[in-house]
Amino acid sequence: MKYKKVPLTAVRRLSIYARTLSDLENRGRETVSSEELGLDANIPSTQVRKDLAYFGQFGTRGKGYSVKELNRKLREILGLDRSWNVALVGAGNLGKALFSYPGFRRQGFHIVAVFDNDPAKIDKEWKGLKIQHIKKLPEIVKEKKISIGIIAVPSSAAQEVAETMCRAGIKAILNFAPKRLFLPPECKQGTVDLAIELENLSYFLTK
Amino acid sequence: MKYKKVPLTAVRRLSIYARTLSDLENRGRETVSSEELGLDANIPSTQVRKDLAYFGQFGTRGKGYSVKELNRKLREILGLDRSWNVALVGAGNLGKALFSYPGFRRQGFHIVAVFDNDPAKIDKEWKGLKIQHIKKLPEIVKEKKISIGIIAVPSSAAQEVAETMCRAGIKAILNFAPKRLFLPPECKQGTVDLAIELENLSYFLTK
Repeated sequence: MKYKKVPLTAVRRLSIYARTLSDLENRGRETVSSEELGLDANIPSTQVRKDLAYFGQFGTRGKGYSVKELNRKLREILGLDRSWNVALVGAGNLGKALFSYPGFRRQGFHIVAVFDNDPAKIDKEWKGLKIQHIKKLPEIVKEKKISIGIIAVPSSAAQEVAETMCRAGIKAILNFAPKRLFLPPECKQGTVDLAIELENLSYFLTK
Repeated sequence: MKYKKVPLTAVRRLSIYARTLSDLENRGRETVSSEELGLDANIPSTQVRKDLAYFGQFGTRGKGYSVKELNRKLREILGLDRSWNVALVGAGNLGKALFSYPGFRRQGFHIVAVFDNDPAKIDKEWKGLKIQHIKKLPEIVKEKKISIGIIAVPSSAAQEVAETMCRAGIKAILNFAPKRLFLPPECKQGTVDLAIELENLSYFLTK
């Protein structure tokens, strides 16, 4: 199913709603109003209703949403009802932290291959997974049906790694290097700039 | 100076504009239009103009913005014209990656203390900085004038660590544990949920 013109920020909020709904489901809740969902997710209820309306008609007037049904639907929209094979490039501190991050696996993202170009790291094992030389990326991406790549290398190497990933058939790249990547349009990119979050906080401390 | 009712998403975009302007400044550019700035930052120019208007009148019709002047102003608004002392709690893989992340220092965020509660980690040194027991946090926060805390502990410990930070006088907390924190209103929080970024990508792969 195609959904047109959904803003990026709305997609991000869907993830937050899905987390909030999973919490409610675990606590045995069966229905929830947009007001409660908004309160729990820290998002205005008008925004909640607007965001959900992009994807069709949910809920019943006066009764609210079915927690289980809405969660299932949002997870389907977000592609969380299946699992994704992920390649990680960069076996440094950040790479290791991302490899160990439990939140990825919980949402169906499995890091099935780790690459680096440092001979001292190649063939080392992380939880039984051998670190491979970056030159093996194309064959392993095909072999393991990898569709998502994570870049955790220094900024100076990020663009080259990204191009290698795209050429190998990876369709989406999550970039942790604080550098803008230039990619072909068929390759979707997301960037995590950890410093931006601190800048958000310093803005509020400065006021 | 106080700016009223600036949406959180606009503050985030200011960080992106500031990065783009620094890039332009390094390339020797003197002026930039909202169209170019938007193109470089991947944000519509109408949004650029709207965001900047929250903070006053910048630029000259027909001539655009002075790159240097606008960058200086945005960095001042974001609190990036000074340095901030930061405490990191959690000396695991993620903590180590954050400690080594060059982007923090570049923007004036200095991790001046690292805490953990694992006896095996206490007194170990990271780049000459001794890891301290969490019980020493209150005295060190005062001694080193720390105003920002970063939480990189397991979810189960995050709330307790956050409360310890707030009681010690920390005013803003960046939380990497995938768990919502409940804090007193004087303590500002930001959350980084690394999985949300992957979900954004899987949404686009699913479409």
